[in-house]
Amino acid sequence: MQIFNTIAETQNYLKAQQKAGKTIGFVPTMGALHTGHISLIESSKKENAITVCSIFVNPTQFNNPEDLKKYPRTLETDCEMLAKAGCDVVFAPSAEEMYPSLPKLKFDFGTLETVMEGKFRPGHFNGVGIVVSKLFNIVKPEKAYFGLKDLQQVAVIRQMVNDLSFDLEIIPCPTLREADGLAMSSRNTRLSAETRALAPHIYQLLTLAKEQLQSGASAAETQAFATDYFRNYPAFELEYLEIANFDTLEPVTQADTAGKTAICIAAFLGGVRLIDNIVF
Amino acid sequence: MQIFNTIAETQNYLKAQQKAGKTIGFVPTMGALHTGHISLIESSKKENAITVCSIFVNPTQFNNPEDLKKYPRTLETDCEMLAKAGCDVVFAPSAEEMYPSLPKLKFDFGTLETVMEGKFRPGHFNGVGIVVSKLFNIVKPEKAYFGLKDLQQVAVIRQMVNDLSFDLEIIPCPTLREADGLAMSSRNTRLSAETRALAPHIYQLLTLAKEQLQSGASAAETQAFATDYFRNYPAFELEYLEIANFDTLEPVTQADTAGKTAICIAAFLGGVRLIDNIVF
Repeated sequence: MQIFNTIAETQNYLKAQQKAGKTIGFVPTMGALHTGHISLIESSKKENAITVCSIFVNPTQFNNPEDLKKYPRTLETDCEMLAKAGCDVVFAPSAEEMYPSLPKLKFDFGTLETVMEGKFRPGHFNGVGIVVSKLFNIVKPEKAYFGLKDLQQVAVIRQMVNDLSFDLEIIPCPTLREADGLAMSSRNTRLSAETRALAPHIYQLLTLAKEQLQSGASAAETQAFATDYFRNYPAFELEYLEIANFDTLEPVTQADTAGKTAICIAAFLGGVRLIDNIVF
Repeated sequence: MQIFNTIAETQNYLKAQQKAGKTIGFVPTMGALHTGHISLIESSKKENAITVCSIFVNPTQFNNPEDLKKYPRTLETDCEMLAKAGCDVVFAPSAEEMYPSLPKLKFDFGTLETVMEGKFRPGHFNGVGIVVSKLFNIVKPEKAYFGLKDLQQVAVIRQMVNDLSFDLEIIPCPTLREADGLAMSSRNTRLSAETRALAPHIYQLLTLAKEQLQSGASAAETQAFATDYFRNYPAFELEYLEIANFDTLEPVTQADTAGKTAICIAAFLGGVRLIDNIVF
């Protein structure tokens, strides 16, 4: 497995591979890898000759400096996991390598970023859009793999790929869960034993909310139910629970009978911000 | 010379060329070609194995629907000129091909677009940025050629290439002028015999303004001089004359002694909007 820290080395290596006719699959990450990330690597390996994983904790997508500071960084074990999974190339640049100067260009995704994560993390999707554009232009993959745990991120990046005519395919991959239902996330490592034991309530609530909506409850009723649910677990601070159209992420008042419905949640638990979603 | 109307055909052809190790030079245009455009084609031919010219009157960069409607469209003679100049590929898509749906993503270039063209053509550089990104992602050139007549456009695109890590080089090329000094422009064809005879005053004024600044006049004095100058030629409606730092395009109060100074002008003449600049 090749490990590169500079754009030039990465591009030199990958250009030679592409000239040799090899297809490139790409898994962009912020490191602190878990089984969920590795499943993306495995999907890429099945469909491409070369699999590239980037590890970069992108400062411009954090609206909260404390969250950025506390984001887990485990490069050595990440590389061990990637090597074991058969990843071919790791691109792990410094912030200075990615941003020799701060970008002047800002991305605005319109309605896609005035809801949920966009609403509660102002500037987040600008940071995501710019860094993913940079990574796409550096790696030039045929396919790029993203986990559906970040449902809104997948929607934003898909929109960006269409709007800018990026010549690649976005492959959304299912959320992986622990045995007790907790969505795998790098942030889970920041949970204490106590909060970790409570964390599965997020997915339990999503499952109950889905049942309610399927039984005809309105979005407002389901949201009230969620607020009630967390009254029993005061360690949680619910940020939002939104019921939305799966494609546009715009709020719906009832479960969508024509298309898919997404229930998306963000909650703080012991100071750690967790998100999850369920689609039906 | 190959002429393609679809993204798929263009990409198929160019990918085969790139696999064969050929470098691609790219000249994006809105058609209505003149000698200035052809000089960009010639520059590209010197430095690349394959030269691609796009012809697309991009609706999203026109803030004025009348200007869009009146923008000259001369595809047939454009293609004749390009064939004669030795251009290899023309990409001439329809608006529907480029925008199957309207982009949701918007670009904001910050201070670069609150001055001059950005100030007087709101949304213009968003339209330019999105379409040029699309074209770069479709053509994937090693080098792209832009005329310095659109000085602010060159600055915006250079910023975008840096900010999004596009893997290509922007080559700015000098403004070509008619014998009487008028900067070559597709819009010149819309001038009447009478206004065409007046049009060289734009460059004459720029030359005089440069002399004033070099003799120590302030930017404000030079701007007052410009307003006075056009009092003698009421056919002109001066939109702006700005004295700016060449790199940042931010206004300066005096000619820059450390770096380069740009004088940029936009004026309406008989309903036709003309721009020009001089750098020293």
